[in-house]
Amino acid sequence: MRDAMNTTDSSTILSNWLARSAENRPQHLAIACNGLRWTFSELDRQATLLAEKFALAGIGAQSRIAVLTGSGLPYVACVHALMRLKAILVPLNLRLTAQELSWQLRDVQAIALLSDLAHQDLARQLAQLLPDLPLGLLHHPSPEVGLTPLVDQQLPFSVRPVQSVAPLNWTINLADTQAIMYTSGTTGTPKGVVLTYGMHWWNAVGSALNLGHQLDDIWLACMPLFHVGGLSILMRSVINGISVILQEKFEPAVVNQTLIDEKVTIISVVAIMLQRMLAELDTREPGGRYPEALRCVLLGGGPAPRPLLEDCASRKIPVVQTYGLTESASQAVTLAPGDALRKLGSAGRPLLPVQLSIRNEGQVAAPNEPGIICLKGPGITPGYDHRPEATAQAIVDGWLSTGDIGYLDEEGYLYVLDRRSDLIISGGENIYPAEIEAALLAHPDVQEAGVCGQADTRWGQIPIAFVHLQAQSVATAEQLLAYTEQRLARYKVPRALYIVGPLPRNASGKLLRRELNKLRPPSSS
Amino acid sequence: MRDAMNTTDSSTILSNWLARSAENRPQHLAIACNGLRWTFSELDRQATLLAEKFALAGIGAQSRIAVLTGSGLPYVACVHALMRLKAILVPLNLRLTAQELSWQLRDVQAIALLSDLAHQDLARQLAQLLPDLPLGLLHHPSPEVGLTPLVDQQLPFSVRPVQSVAPLNWTINLADTQAIMYTSGTTGTPKGVVLTYGMHWWNAVGSALNLGHQLDDIWLACMPLFHVGGLSILMRSVINGISVILQEKFEPAVVNQTLIDEKVTIISVVAIMLQRMLAELDTREPGGRYPEALRCVLLGGGPAPRPLLEDCASRKIPVVQTYGLTESASQAVTLAPGDALRKLGSAGRPLLPVQLSIRNEGQVAAPNEPGIICLKGPGITPGYDHRPEATAQAIVDGWLSTGDIGYLDEEGYLYVLDRRSDLIISGGENIYPAEIEAALLAHPDVQEAGVCGQADTRWGQIPIAFVHLQAQSVATAEQLLAYTEQRLARYKVPRALYIVGPLPRNASGKLLRRELNKLRPPSSS
Repeated sequence: MRDAMNTTDSSTILSNWLARSAENRPQHLAIACNGLRWTFSELDRQATLLAEKFALAGIGAQSRIAVLTGSGLPYVACVHALMRLKAILVPLNLRLTAQELSWQLRDVQAIALLSDLAHQDLARQLAQLLPDLPLGLLHHPSPEVGLTPLVDQQLPFSVRPVQSVAPLNWTINLADTQAIMYTSGTTGTPKGVVLTYGMHWWNAVGSALNLGHQLDDIWLACMPLFHVGGLSILMRSVINGISVILQEKFEPAVVNQTLIDEKVTIISVVAIMLQRMLAELDTREPGGRYPEALRCVLLGGGPAPRPLLEDCASRKIPVVQTYGLTESASQAVTLAPGDALRKLGSAGRPLLPVQLSIRNEGQVAAPNEPGIICLKGPGITPGYDHRPEATAQAIVDGWLSTGDIGYLDEEGYLYVLDRRSDLIISGGENIYPAEIEAALLAHPDVQEAGVCGQADTRWGQIPIAFVHLQAQSVATAEQLLAYTEQRLARYKVPRALYIVGPLPRNASGKLLRRELNKLRPPSSS
Repeated sequence: MRDAMNTTDSSTILSNWLARSAENRPQHLAIACNGLRWTFSELDRQATLLAEKFALAGIGAQSRIAVLTGSGLPYVACVHALMRLKAILVPLNLRLTAQELSWQLRDVQAIALLSDLAHQDLARQLAQLLPDLPLGLLHHPSPEVGLTPLVDQQLPFSVRPVQSVAPLNWTINLADTQAIMYTSGTTGTPKGVVLTYGMHWWNAVGSALNLGHQLDDIWLACMPLFHVGGLSILMRSVINGISVILQEKFEPAVVNQTLIDEKVTIISVVAIMLQRMLAELDTREPGGRYPEALRCVLLGGGPAPRPLLEDCASRKIPVVQTYGLTESASQAVTLAPGDALRKLGSAGRPLLPVQLSIRNEGQVAAPNEPGIICLKGPGITPGYDHRPEATAQAIVDGWLSTGDIGYLDEEGYLYVLDRRSDLIISGGENIYPAEIEAALLAHPDVQEAGVCGQADTRWGQIPIAFVHLQAQSVATAEQLLAYTEQRLARYKVPRALYIVGPLPRNASGKLLRRELNKLRPPSSS
């Protein structure tokens, strides 16, 4: 019977989301940032103009374009311009070193690097490491010249050779890749997670069904847009046709003032941001609250401290915990607003498009039994860019093994115990011990290196390192830390480094990171 | 690159919607009907019990099960029980004659016929016409014995031979067929429209994105559930996790009282229903209004009379016009609530998953130029059951030609001029002239027959017939009407029949139905 049906194309085609929102709600606010307010019509116009410039520069379908900008309108217009060309966005993490970034640029085979003015120096530095990489500059529009085309006229770039001018596309194929976003994963080797349009779509829909969808929703984005948590807000904006207020930096006082002034309905935060917001709120009025318009404080980025949740509950701040990762295009499991108090501490239940399973040694775990959190569904990544082995290892029979540890209670609510067994989450940033260990092991004096997290009141966790030196080595902790500072982003550099004897390992020689802390000299604990 | 990805299955699998809602909101009201209130947990339990009974009776994947019931809990439980078995629902229109229904049962090759008590006699009558068709009876639960299993213990049925007991399924493949629903289309020959799970999913999501989605939404269903407008409400309920109040019959006073008492937020109606509701409301208080909780009166089923829209606007009743058809699983184009007054009379803009095009002679029409409404997207049917030619004729390159006439204004808002050129819409029911003409032409005295619609203040339109008799025939209009009454559902029987001379035809002999009215004797106009 199926053969007689109209099935010219098995993949799902939708109208371009931004273009559709611009048709449906042309005068509705799409994005406000730094004093500028763009309607959907204006954002659409800016994205189209930029896409036309990109096309003239040789960018087209499948072009991999790395973007090194702050959270501003240039980035937003760029995201949509690349979508219109079916080009692939590669957002770069501004906290990484030139060495880390150049590795990603090579690995993803980017054909151009775009930056904004604030990151032009770093872009030039990267271009020295990758001499064939064309650079492009995206101007920040100022309030006075908000309609200036975003690509610098004085610094034209082109992707050589310009073979042909690509057409603009007005549809979206959900199976296509929208972005490649790097994450280190359990192995410590960065991998490019493929983010498809479908993942964004299913995530936006799942989120709207769970949190509700109001036509006058305003989502405050104050997280980096190079992470999936930020990028997914831009996608929800055009899919759901709702407004975003974008803040270039996280400043608790500015965020609080915006929440009070602007009828914001939803904000995405990680625990440390929320803590700082509440502290700032207390300086205005102890135990202060937010306006009732704020219907959802979406709290992600790792297990939340219970005192924080209780503080929010006492202030009637509608915190909704969520669990997600790059591989699930942000939210995969989110508490329903109605369960926020009853299930304090839980990340909730899987969004409708997501299937969730806790597995222990491959078996489905019983209620309350911890195991590895596994996810399946159309919102989960198809895999890692050009890494079939890593993909096959992470995704079996459609089930993504996240490596994170959690359990389901009797009602099927997820409690996350640990983000990946060894993952360190510091101020919302993921730090993979294996990556720091690899940097230390590159030093000739280091025989063994082990890194683990240490609780920290401000950052949640900070990384600390344990090193077993080669025989006869006289290297000092200070020397080794200085060595890592040249190789790692600042937030990854261990806050302490202990020179110790042989590291704890299991029978098969695997490093037991959880036992590292026992090696600390008594005076330091 | 795609090959390296995890693509074990190209189709999209979701958790069973009802089961998921029962997990997410077990104690939330799923459906209230006739004094009974079932939570999602209870509806899930009833559907599971019924599915287990169905499985024992031999129903399984792909089983085509015709259902002849009123709008009640037995039907609702049955819909979900069949989904759990991946069986295919064939809802029967209660307004059709036994002859019409038996034709459909044969055409769809139903393997069982289920009815409720109220329609048991008609079911038995059909079983006489189709002696091999097993019958099953679905009990209405009474408030006292609400948990009684719905399948009669005293009248067991089985689909012979019972090969094996099918397992219950807890996932949904969006590509699978959920139902086959008969519609006559332009040709007048009924065809089974394939309704996939994906169509319902995309429709529910598109509707939620356009109308907004509140976690406490309550949708009042007072339209027949054997039409797609009613069935789609049941689907939205379990996809979105919202409550439905189901009324077995449309009674304006009951509907109005429910709107006033029950915090209903959305109601689906056709124009004649809304007119009668307003008339009843006026008997309570002239110019009366509804509570503010009612945020959307979704008005479908054909072009709406402008005075009705203006009356609603003056009462601040939030009417939102919609255009849809069985082939689009109900809503395809819907006005956004914010545009309701600015675009009075428009059906709005296509839902996000829908692409819309107006075509004239195959070319895309200019703004304000009428043409055939064509639809494309994942919410549109893959085709007609076992009718590849009809499918290929209706759907070209993914575009469904609806046959309905409309135009888009400069802003892309749809105005529907005519439901299919010849379609008569009477009280929300589609009447296809060709079908009535075929019944008349079966009479030996009839040489030509033509049917068209006549405006009617109560029903919107009513069918009237023109007959050119064979030479020497002395048949009377009364005799011919009596003849059609035996063959056609009551609402299809012409309200007037005129014996006239040769009917107007174009050069190629095609009947010009629009000119039939000129043949009416002067005294009758």
